[in-house]
Amino acid sequence: MRAILNGERLVLGTCYYPEHWPENMWRKDLDRMLASGIEVIRIAEFAWSKIELTEGVFNYDFFDRFLDIVEQTDMKVIFCTPTATPPAWLTKKYPEVLNCDIDGIRYNHGMRRHYNYNSPVYRQLCARIVEKSAAHYAGRRCIIGWQLDNEFNCELDVFYSESDSAAFRVFLEEKYGTLEALNEAWGTVFWNQTYTAWDEICVPRKTPGYVANPHQMLDYFRFVSASARSFAKAQSDIIRRYAKPDDFITTNGMFGNLDNHQMTAESLDFYTYDSYPNFAFCLDVYRDEPESLKDRGWSRNLSEVRSISPAFGIMEQQSGANGSNAGMEAPTPRPGQMTLWTMQSIAHGADFVSYFRWRTSTIGSEIYWHGILDYSGRENRRLRELCDIHKKISCINQIAGSQYEAQTAILTDYDNIWDKQADAWHRRIDDPSRKAFFAAAQRSHTPLDYVFLGHADLEKLRQYKVLIYPHMTIVTKEQADLLTKYVEQGGTLVIGCRSGYKDSSGRCVMEKLPGLLSPLTGTDIPEYSFIAPDAGKVTVSWDGTEFEAEVFADLLAPVGGGEVEGTYTSDYYAGTPALIRKNSGAGKTYYYGSAWNEKSARIFLEKLGAASPFADLAKVPAGCELAVRRKGDKRYLFVLNYESTPAVFTLYKRGTDLYTGKTVTGDITLEGYGTAVIAIE
Amino acid sequence: MRAILNGERLVLGTCYYPEHWPENMWRKDLDRMLASGIEVIRIAEFAWSKIELTEGVFNYDFFDRFLDIVEQTDMKVIFCTPTATPPAWLTKKYPEVLNCDIDGIRYNHGMRRHYNYNSPVYRQLCARIVEKSAAHYAGRRCIIGWQLDNEFNCELDVFYSESDSAAFRVFLEEKYGTLEALNEAWGTVFWNQTYTAWDEICVPRKTPGYVANPHQMLDYFRFVSASARSFAKAQSDIIRRYAKPDDFITTNGMFGNLDNHQMTAESLDFYTYDSYPNFAFCLDVYRDEPESLKDRGWSRNLSEVRSISPAFGIMEQQSGANGSNAGMEAPTPRPGQMTLWTMQSIAHGADFVSYFRWRTSTIGSEIYWHGILDYSGRENRRLRELCDIHKKISCINQIAGSQYEAQTAILTDYDNIWDKQADAWHRRIDDPSRKAFFAAAQRSHTPLDYVFLGHADLEKLRQYKVLIYPHMTIVTKEQADLLTKYVEQGGTLVIGCRSGYKDSSGRCVMEKLPGLLSPLTGTDIPEYSFIAPDAGKVTVSWDGTEFEAEVFADLLAPVGGGEVEGTYTSDYYAGTPALIRKNSGAGKTYYYGSAWNEKSARIFLEKLGAASPFADLAKVPAGCELAVRRKGDKRYLFVLNYESTPAVFTLYKRGTDLYTGKTVTGDITLEGYGTAVIAIE
Amino acid sequence: MRAILNGERLVLGTCYYPEHWPENMWRKDLDRMLASGIEVIRIAEFAWSKIELTEGVFNYDFFDRFLDIVEQTDMKVIFCTPTATPPAWLTKKYPEVLNCDIDGIRYNHGMRRHYNYNSPVYRQLCARIVEKSAAHYAGRRCIIGWQLDNEFNCELDVFYSESDSAAFRVFLEEKYGTLEALNEAWGTVFWNQTYTAWDEICVPRKTPGYVANPHQMLDYFRFVSASARSFAKAQSDIIRRYAKPDDFITTNGMFGNLDNHQMTAESLDFYTYDSYPNFAFCLDVYRDEPESLKDRGWSRNLSEVRSISPAFGIMEQQSGANGSNAGMEAPTPRPGQMTLWTMQSIAHGADFVSYFRWRTSTIGSEIYWHGILDYSGRENRRLRELCDIHKKISCINQIAGSQYEAQTAILTDYDNIWDKQADAWHRRIDDPSRKAFFAAAQRSHTPLDYVFLGHADLEKLRQYKVLIYPHMTIVTKEQADLLTKYVEQGGTLVIGCRSGYKDSSGRCVMEKLPGLLSPLTGTDIPEYSFIAPDAGKVTVSWDGTEFEAEVFADLLAPVGGGEVEGTYTSDYYAGTPALIRKNSGAGKTYYYGSAWNEKSARIFLEKLGAASPFADLAKVPAGCELAVRRKGDKRYLFVLNYESTPAVFTLYKRGTDLYTGKTVTGDITLEGYGTAVIAIE
Repeated sequence: MRAILNGERLVLGTCYYPEHWPENMWRKDLDRMLASGIEVIRIAEFAWSKIELTEGVFNYDFFDRFLDIVEQTDMKVIFCTPTATPPAWLTKKYPEVLNCDIDGIRYNHGMRRHYNYNSPVYRQLCARIVEKSAAHYAGRRCIIGWQLDNEFNCELDVFYSESDSAAFRVFLEEKYGTLEALNEAWGTVFWNQTYTAWDEICVPRKTPGYVANPHQMLDYFRFVSASARSFAKAQSDIIRRYAKPDDFITTNGMFGNLDNHQMTAESLDFYTYDSYPNFAFCLDVYRDEPESLKDRGWSRNLSEVRSISPAFGIMEQQSGANGSNAGMEAPTPRPGQMTLWTMQSIAHGADFVSYFRWRTSTIGSEIYWHGILDYSGRENRRLRELCDIHKKISCINQIAGSQYEAQTAILTDYDNIWDKQADAWHRRIDDPSRKAFFAAAQRSHTPLDYVFLGHADLEKLRQYKVLIYPHMTIVTKEQADLLTKYVEQGGTLVIGCRSGYKDSSGRCVMEKLPGLLSPLTGTDIPEYSFIAPDAGKVTVSWDGTEFEAEVFADLLAPVGGGEVEGTYTSDYYAGTPALIRKNSGAGKTYYYGSAWNEKSARIFLEKLGAASPFADLAKVPAGCELAVRRKGDKRYLFVLNYESTPAVFTLYKRGTDLYTGKTVTGDITLEGYGTAVIAIE
Repeated sequence: MRAILNGERLVLGTCYYPEHWPENMWRKDLDRMLASGIEVIRIAEFAWSKIELTEGVFNYDFFDRFLDIVEQTDMKVIFCTPTATPPAWLTKKYPEVLNCDIDGIRYNHGMRRHYNYNSPVYRQLCARIVEKSAAHYAGRRCIIGWQLDNEFNCELDVFYSESDSAAFRVFLEEKYGTLEALNEAWGTVFWNQTYTAWDEICVPRKTPGYVANPHQMLDYFRFVSASARSFAKAQSDIIRRYAKPDDFITTNGMFGNLDNHQMTAESLDFYTYDSYPNFAFCLDVYRDEPESLKDRGWSRNLSEVRSISPAFGIMEQQSGANGSNAGMEAPTPRPGQMTLWTMQSIAHGADFVSYFRWRTSTIGSEIYWHGILDYSGRENRRLRELCDIHKKISCINQIAGSQYEAQTAILTDYDNIWDKQADAWHRRIDDPSRKAFFAAAQRSHTPLDYVFLGHADLEKLRQYKVLIYPHMTIVTKEQADLLTKYVEQGGTLVIGCRSGYKDSSGRCVMEKLPGLLSPLTGTDIPEYSFIAPDAGKVTVSWDGTEFEAEVFADLLAPVGGGEVEGTYTSDYYAGTPALIRKNSGAGKTYYYGSAWNEKSARIFLEKLGAASPFADLAKVPAGCELAVRRKGDKRYLFVLNYESTPAVFTLYKRGTDLYTGKTVTGDITLEGYGTAVIAIE
Repeated sequence: MRAILNGERLVLGTCYYPEHWPENMWRKDLDRMLASGIEVIRIAEFAWSKIELTEGVFNYDFFDRFLDIVEQTDMKVIFCTPTATPPAWLTKKYPEVLNCDIDGIRYNHGMRRHYNYNSPVYRQLCARIVEKSAAHYAGRRCIIGWQLDNEFNCELDVFYSESDSAAFRVFLEEKYGTLEALNEAWGTVFWNQTYTAWDEICVPRKTPGYVANPHQMLDYFRFVSASARSFAKAQSDIIRRYAKPDDFITTNGMFGNLDNHQMTAESLDFYTYDSYPNFAFCLDVYRDEPESLKDRGWSRNLSEVRSISPAFGIMEQQSGANGSNAGMEAPTPRPGQMTLWTMQSIAHGADFVSYFRWRTSTIGSEIYWHGILDYSGRENRRLRELCDIHKKISCINQIAGSQYEAQTAILTDYDNIWDKQADAWHRRIDDPSRKAFFAAAQRSHTPLDYVFLGHADLEKLRQYKVLIYPHMTIVTKEQADLLTKYVEQGGTLVIGCRSGYKDSSGRCVMEKLPGLLSPLTGTDIPEYSFIAPDAGKVTVSWDGTEFEAEVFADLLAPVGGGEVEGTYTSDYYAGTPALIRKNSGAGKTYYYGSAWNEKSARIFLEKLGAASPFADLAKVPAGCELAVRRKGDKRYLFVLNYESTPAVFTLYKRGTDLYTGKTVTGDITLEGYGTAVIAIE
């Protein structure tokens, strides 16, 4: 079976824990799943002890019995490596496999991800159980794929064990060759940090105030990513040697300090995402802020996942209240929300949606992480909603393999993401600008892609009419050249303040700012400042349109062909250029000296002609998301209502409501949390 | 002397530290105490070094001299074991006696309770000094009783030393016998926590996010309680072998993770409480919230203490500003408050009240924990107030031995208390409901008892017309049977949402909810949810009375004789049953699908006829507490004014104002912070 | 060259890091500095590895080359000892030199000040490099002075390594001689802390709640100060043996737990301060509070520095945005602010101002700690402002050597400062009162000095008409005698609540309060209390003037000549004396029973005739600071406008505007952030 992500049809799955339930329930559960439209189950991701209860003694009886029963049905299986939770005997015997906090204090057995990726003995023990399991099960008929570990870098994405320091040194020696090169890259002459022997170097541990060298931190985040990637690849390489040719390898994310693009390229057939939009409604975090996108904000995550893996799945899709005994308190999804969130995933490109989870666990820290069924397993509202989803899915199967359609993309790259983690000034501008563009795009119905430089070539960039890099702090020569070509060939590029002032080590450049971006942007920055907190509103005028500058002010001057488009109109820099445009070849670049709020982001999208590209197709209220998937000439319009109250949108063309098969046009009403998928010819 | 707690009369005491003061002050202090009405002093609870300054060398000269002087007077003494503060030589030589934090980092000498209960060497050293002291002093004429340690589980009620892990394993092996049974009870199959050797098990230490197995935590809290109890019992057993027959053993509380009922049954003659209502007014915690009960809230603690030990004392009663150099900042009690708080203790059943403390210490962390006298020891307002209290006490001596009168009780039990500590969902509903019932009862003048299941039999339960278990998460068969008998014999039982879904290991049950409570309540719960934080007010209608549901919504359905009394009137579950009544035998049970706020708690008390049982006796303003103690046919009415302004209450019968001996009826005025005790024939 | 701080003229400097920049930039940088008015550079404070890259191998080539180039110009140099940042090889080989947190966890290499002052091996290694460098460079012509280490006690001013505990024992043994004396001073009988061997004593480490013996903490802070002082003196003693006779030794501050007065007396020629008023505008800390003094608040620090070292310099004067990658986010100084803050320093007595720093570093944690020049080194607005400052400085050179003129002083002393750190009750009153007096003095244009008892004799005190010790918790006999003499000889002394209740060990006294201050103040305190948080406003009436009591209420009674001047007019102590005056000899003492807010502080200044001593000279708006420096008969009036908008002040006499040389009188307008220096004959 290769229906998953081959564009043939949409597939539903669920997560199942045979080890949690009496064996005599298994067959009944499988039959009920199949009756509800579930075709695939994921199993065994925390089951190390079910296989190797005693060191070196491997026993597959348990899963043999389970898979035998599975194979009495049409159910298909994704089998997991169990390495996210080492057994108690392992961490007791080999405490060096445990991760530590930044103070060097060990995490203990009892939760998840308490291990480190770099312990040689853990690497060996993992390789052995992966190989044993792959050898034992790879040929099983019901198995269609493998999941590596579970949620790499979830819970913890920083590692401070001795094994990590040792591996960090190896990583650095490979990267730099000499200590001289490392000292130069890290600027260790500052505060007398100069290293004179490799073993003086550690991961960035406790210091006064936990202040660490930012260049070391940037390399450290790269190292954490490389550690996770190599841990994944070791498993993937083993499984590939055993797996049936059509079987896939995947893992589920998406978590920090990990280049998921690179990991997917190296080790996976496709990437899967765990989508829990209900996190927005947890009692302990909910804030009643009208500007918040709440569950709709998960569309941003889905857009980023799409950039990792154009064909992607949802390995864990919310199907009940999420929660933990330790502090997460979410309501049960309301009638319609499970469907809404499923359609959100599909609208953004998922062709496989697997619900977490069939049954709610009666034990452990996740007794409140509800599945479709509650503790008793009785039939319930959510199971009925699943059946309805299955019916809808069956109606829209033709969209499988279609692509999400966006003409505008937000640029990013891992180096800048990680630099931001080590840099409060970078965070202070980048977080609001990214939030602003996403919100402005959502509310103006401007589909957005996220494009990661380093994982995108010129051809990829040229798919977009407009590219926006809000704050490109670190810029490399390759990136500057690539962006220049994009512009010269007709693209429109927008760059915000604080760009181009760091090199790839996170060191500030001594060229005039914005450094490597100066020629492309036609911009010089003689002076810059955070907007003083006592300054009040600082405004910018662009062709008579006024909006508010946000957080920072690069005070600009045009150079080499730059033309002033906007100026500051307040504070001591009133009259100073705030926005410079430079035409290059067939395209143009805008350098904006500030960060964005939602209003200014909306103005940029509109002025650049990027906003509302489907305005001729439909008029959709701000409370609904509009998404379009395209296959060849065919467009599939998704309208998703995140409000509890009904919404009316207007379809300007004729289309087919795929749920009903009826032709529709004009005003169409969605109930609260309602969705529509309309095929446009 | 056995006047303490034998119902003969009320007794006043104080806490004294002879080791803090020059010896030539002792006699004068004792004489001044006696002149002020103090009959008993507690001494020596932090005086290990005064007895065993060098390991194994016991010297009683100091306390011999002090007790010789005491015996020149009529003062009586409660002598303490000194184990709350091990000496410096001890923790230096045997660092394994020190407690650790959850990260495994040791607490050091210099504060209190830095030891653990399970270190074998500490057990030995404690047993030796307790035995030596008991042997030396038990026969002393002036000694009337013994206090074990001081405030068990104060400061720290969690323990993470190696000794604790070792003892935890023994505790578990005794409880479970086999690892299979433990693995089953703890659900260790979840997240691969399965244990294959006893020494893999530890107390729940640092993990990522400090998330721990909730079933392990439940056993851990039981273990902490058992450790403290056995530590206490070891001392009590020794003292019993030496003490004079009439002398009592007690200890002072009340702190967490300790089954005080069981400890009292095993080791004490009665329990004493340390009452500091002035904590409500600390500058660093005070919030100006009109709904807060402030110092009046201590009545809840006193009610819980009453359930531990029907005859109880106050070992430390506030007599000055409380405070610490480290951060606690309280004002001095205003004129009248010392009396008010004393009468609050007595109203709730205390027959012995010992003030903390005679003199304010001039040294150490408690220089701001004021006693009756300030640093200089000069005569002052509080000493004058003590003399006035003594006069009042002499007037009301007849109430000694009378019982607090309540017809309604709130149920609880230790397993659910501890489960709540490990469970954010449990806390989120239980805390507001308990607060709501207490506040509603206080303001409607509905005296409440607290009844701990596991420490109360059917006869005890039948004393109450109405029993309320707000949220009985864990339910055992024995408990369900007991409550069923209570109802069948005519009782009214109220149960709130989220009941019956866990077993005694804290695992969720697979029966339909509310599990074991379903037959008694006539209730089924097909669905449930936290009230979504964006839902606005969710209302319930009960026979036309509307009130607001709180935090959670069990969506109910009647089964097996249940009858719908109330329904939700908002959100997607409008029209769904919210309150079901089932009659059983002579009584009835109510299952309410939500948690309570003060308003809904008041409505329940009123609708069930529990509110204001003394409304025919007196009409008391909401700002005053009404309490009644009864001895035979005689009722003693306490009215306590917690406001700074005068209050008027109306007595509908004739009574005797015990302070004045005059007959009173009709409107009676209390000054700000004023109290009245009226005997009703 | 001895122009620095010899009263000849004002000198400008900057901080330079030759090790950060290519050698071919050095000469150009030096020339640009000189052209901008910079005469002195500070170098080498973090350059250990540039000299001793390998243990024991000293190489001065780098700084030799730099100083050779310096000596081709007129630039002068302050050379630093590099001990604030030990090299990686050192902390790796000798981890005992590292400081620990209170839990005993080591800080690691990578930041600053991760070492402890007491490690014997660190002391040796520091002594060696200081001696080698002094020997090598002392004779250098361009060197005019030395800076010890950098910012002692910055980042961390508490130390918990094993070396610190060992040294603490030595410190205590020297202080107390016997354990008996120590146990008495520390009140160790409280909570059984008694020590029976010296090695049982440690620095105050982790305990439950981190509560520690306050008397031990007081000695601990003294010990930290002594440790830093002796660390400084060891270096100073070495340098003195080598330095040229005219060369000075200094260090830069000002940080906690350090008796800077004593250190200056022992080891320095004068003290320098690092002045960063822009901290007030960091985005992460700024609060829009109209009563806040913001950058103007730095005048308080400058006043305290003036008390340490009447002739002082600014070693680091803000010249750009301050910031850190780890969380500090400040705007760039606005046009004029760099001048404003420079003149603020000079107005308060600085004759040397050295800007931090010439170039903004492109590497490390301080890439956002901007210097005059940005990363590129291009000419910019701040460099232009420096040139303008230089012009202004040249015009006002005559003020060098003049003294700041204040007739009122706030008293303090290190023991009370450190006691406050260990005592929440002390902090709660002292912090607002000190803030209130400073704000009231600023806004009423009442120049203030700070006088540290223990570092000031009677002659010093007699310089002031009014002395205010807001809350003199600890009082010694010597202090009481000194203050009595001050009053008897005509001074006016104001003392606030909570004074005189502790001895020099921080133990409470048993005399009637205010203890040793009772005779001088004519005051008795029969009762006291925090003002209850539910009390509302508590008012005081002084001769018909009403104001609000703050935080605390000592309820007073006059004794021995005291006369009631003010009484409480609310709460239960309405009518009780709140303010008592006693005349002694030619002077008088006021004891006020509460703490101060800005309004009551202003009333005190006014009623005592201390407010606005220069009211006959000029009328200055509240938003401007007025300061006067005097040399002989000549007064230099500084008016500093901290607002962004213009301000007008009125000069009642004729004077010379030193910037312009013109005679001025009457209304004078300052632009936003503008300054004026006017010589009055």
